[in-house]
Amino acid sequence: MKNYRTALLLPLLISSLIGCQSPSPSNTNQLLAESLQQKALDSDLGFQIVESLTVEVGPRLAGSPKDAMAVAWAEKKLQSLGFDRVYKEAVEVPVWERGEASASIVAPFQQPLVITALGGSVATPAEGITAKIVRFDSLAALKEANPDDVAGKIVFIDQKTERHKTGKGYGKSVGGRSRGAIEAARKGALAIVIRSIGTDHDRMAHTGTMRYEEGLKRIPAAAMSAPDADLVNAMLKRSADITLTLKMSPENKGSAISYNVIAEVTGSSKPDEIVLIGAHLDSWDEGTGAIDDGAGVAIVTAAGKLIQDLPVKPARTVRVVLYAAEEIGLVGGKAYAKAHAAELDKHYIAAESDFGAGPIYRIDFQVNDQVLPKLQQLTQLMQRNGVAAGDNSAYGGPDVSMLPASGVPVASLRQDGTDYFDYHHTPNDTLDKIDPKALAQNIAAYAQFAYLMAQSELELRPLPAKQ
Amino acid sequence: MKNYRTALLLPLLISSLIGCQSPSPSNTNQLLAESLQQKALDSDLGFQIVESLTVEVGPRLAGSPKDAMAVAWAEKKLQSLGFDRVYKEAVEVPVWERGEASASIVAPFQQPLVITALGGSVATPAEGITAKIVRFDSLAALKEANPDDVAGKIVFIDQKTERHKTGKGYGKSVGGRSRGAIEAARKGALAIVIRSIGTDHDRMAHTGTMRYEEGLKRIPAAAMSAPDADLVNAMLKRSADITLTLKMSPENKGSAISYNVIAEVTGSSKPDEIVLIGAHLDSWDEGTGAIDDGAGVAIVTAAGKLIQDLPVKPARTVRVVLYAAEEIGLVGGKAYAKAHAAELDKHYIAAESDFGAGPIYRIDFQVNDQVLPKLQQLTQLMQRNGVAAGDNSAYGGPDVSMLPASGVPVASLRQDGTDYFDYHHTPNDTLDKIDPKALAQNIAAYAQFAYLMAQSELELRPLPAKQ
Repeated sequence: MKNYRTALLLPLLISSLIGCQSPSPSNTNQLLAESLQQKALDSDLGFQIVESLTVEVGPRLAGSPKDAMAVAWAEKKLQSLGFDRVYKEAVEVPVWERGEASASIVAPFQQPLVITALGGSVATPAEGITAKIVRFDSLAALKEANPDDVAGKIVFIDQKTERHKTGKGYGKSVGGRSRGAIEAARKGALAIVIRSIGTDHDRMAHTGTMRYEEGLKRIPAAAMSAPDADLVNAMLKRSADITLTLKMSPENKGSAISYNVIAEVTGSSKPDEIVLIGAHLDSWDEGTGAIDDGAGVAIVTAAGKLIQDLPVKPARTVRVVLYAAEEIGLVGGKAYAKAHAAELDKHYIAAESDFGAGPIYRIDFQVNDQVLPKLQQLTQLMQRNGVAAGDNSAYGGPDVSMLPASGVPVASLRQDGTDYFDYHHTPNDTLDKIDPKALAQNIAAYAQFAYLMAQSELELRPLPAKQ
Repeated sequence: MKNYRTALLLPLLISSLIGCQSPSPSNTNQLLAESLQQKALDSDLGFQIVESLTVEVGPRLAGSPKDAMAVAWAEKKLQSLGFDRVYKEAVEVPVWERGEASASIVAPFQQPLVITALGGSVATPAEGITAKIVRFDSLAALKEANPDDVAGKIVFIDQKTERHKTGKGYGKSVGGRSRGAIEAARKGALAIVIRSIGTDHDRMAHTGTMRYEEGLKRIPAAAMSAPDADLVNAMLKRSADITLTLKMSPENKGSAISYNVIAEVTGSSKPDEIVLIGAHLDSWDEGTGAIDDGAGVAIVTAAGKLIQDLPVKPARTVRVVLYAAEEIGLVGGKAYAKAHAAELDKHYIAAESDFGAGPIYRIDFQVNDQVLPKLQQLTQLMQRNGVAAGDNSAYGGPDVSMLPASGVPVASLRQDGTDYFDYHHTPNDTLDKIDPKALAQNIAAYAQFAYLMAQSELELRPLPAKQ
């Protein structure tokens, strides 16, 4: 009974298409796009995909043996779904192994801390680093600090991440993670431990990538859980002299070959023009990579499959790209842009799903300002699926964020990320955090978006000049 | 301004008590008991106590160096609060060290699991135990199993713990933890790994004590997190043959001396009669022992302090008992009952706070059936603090649960434990899980209860015959 409404609708559509009556092309588009919503909501294919990925592969850190398994899983899964074309493109990715990480306050009160290494961090010496900590409210405060107060110490950046539907709190605090080790090293610190960039209060630390700078010492970098950051603050109320021991054994191990895995629904009349919907296949290693970004993999794959199965193919090619090594620096996204430089002018529009599985509530674009109202008109039926028309501020998602520089229009299908940073980059990124209904709503939105874009007769270029 | 209302009330009370006018004793009791509520709600002493314990001591597994620190902390804290008497009583406690614990599914899909050893478990061999798992819905299902299906395997008991305000789900599922290793060993299993006895969906495992039986092999016992139990189930949907490797290095290390730490407000006219309010000082080792049972320590200590500071002492002695080694088998409670056997007939009533820091919504008793209505009448003013009159079904709390067998009446001040088993026995048992307002409400309830009981002229004995 599940497909009852679709079952009623489809013969009608097909009979229309084969010509009993001749509906206008735009009516057909609208009818087919409407049908995609119900088909997505009636299907559990997306949940099956993310369950399969998280159960049969699980954590898949770029360049690890599990990453290779994920690539094999993706090829097989995409092939089994009957896409017109499935292929992969090699990407050289850095290899980093987490090793062990532990930390304890040793004075004034001995307490173990729950920490994790930041991705890319170097190790401590085997005996660890034991030093006093120096606390800062933010990366900005560290930048302003007197080096005399920092040298020889372990920097503690203690910035809370604000909870918000859009996830905008992450942008405010994540600098401490990505650039903290650089600024701390510049002032002579021995190591850095940050309050996790997360909105939860679970005793789990949030990993995530960090950077070093040429010519500066590479110091170990870790995150502690929010309750542990509170604990350190409670000790700081009692004494300015807090001594911490930090031991970590991560290892940077050169590079390996991973792959962007790609599936296509071949366009019927403009096969060389591309509508790209993407997600990233790699994940951090502590959860099973369900919301980051198993959900995205499921969303764009299931959306592509719905289009593959339409009675008539859309004009443009719909390309589903499962990117390699997003977590460690958008490596797959950059490699794609480079490998496909010659056809970027044929990319009609691109969007990546990489913000969990919360419902999509808005669609933003980055297109010619003049065409935005028409594009909003074209995608109006997405509103019945809860997706309001947004503005022209989209960046498209991490792995497609470099495409607008080459003139490629992008869209951001905004998800409710209220609890995303509760789980992000922790052991808690597991399948149970995905609501199957919200996932299906996402799939409906991506399917409608991709189909309408593949059929669209609007000219989305040139992009507005950068402010 | 915080104590404004109390400040107005107390001179009035004191002047009444010194005889300008002679209020009836029961009116005075009621007025003083009323004042205790406001004093408790105006004070942050309770939160300060649990903050101090969790920050300055932290985890305090019975018999560990931290347990000794906790005893020293408790003596000093109780002395600093000016109780009439502070002392400790030696208790011999078993010593168990957690060591390391890890587990992975090795086939059909390699995945690491988040596990923890159950308290008291023996270790695996250093190379671990690798075997197929056999799953049961419950301890009862394991008991009914054919030994041929269990021998040589790792038992997996997969019972979910139902969320409930009263915590009653715990009672239904905890048998798998406490007796699972016995039943599994009886049928020839090599080890047991249970779904954590918890109501959360965090990727943390819940520890807790387990038992062995004389004459049966002692097999290693662990718990896995709920997401990991889901993962194993998802694999079981794909294959009946799931192979798990389990490595654990806990160690039973004989016994040590710990202490029940006791403070008293000496009764003014019946000093040899005791109203006992207790909590346990020890905790598991993975969190900081905030809700289990730092909260209880704070509640009964702050309640006792409020009574200590009354302008006139109550008739009976109020005894605050911070029990040793509750987690590993109610060791302190049993030792107390033994050491105080001769004065148990002088224990008017006893209650323990050991269910977190949620608001108290009801008070139950275990007293002479005939006197229950009068007791409910006497404690009626607790209703203004949100504490409804309950029934005669109390067991009093773990460390006082053995007292009714000696004729001692008990009370259960029922807390809202809806989220208690989200955090219980995990690294997530940290200070941030305590709501200071709810904690103060608990303190008000315990202070009122202890004061009214210390003044009561009701005869609570004999207890009803056991059904």
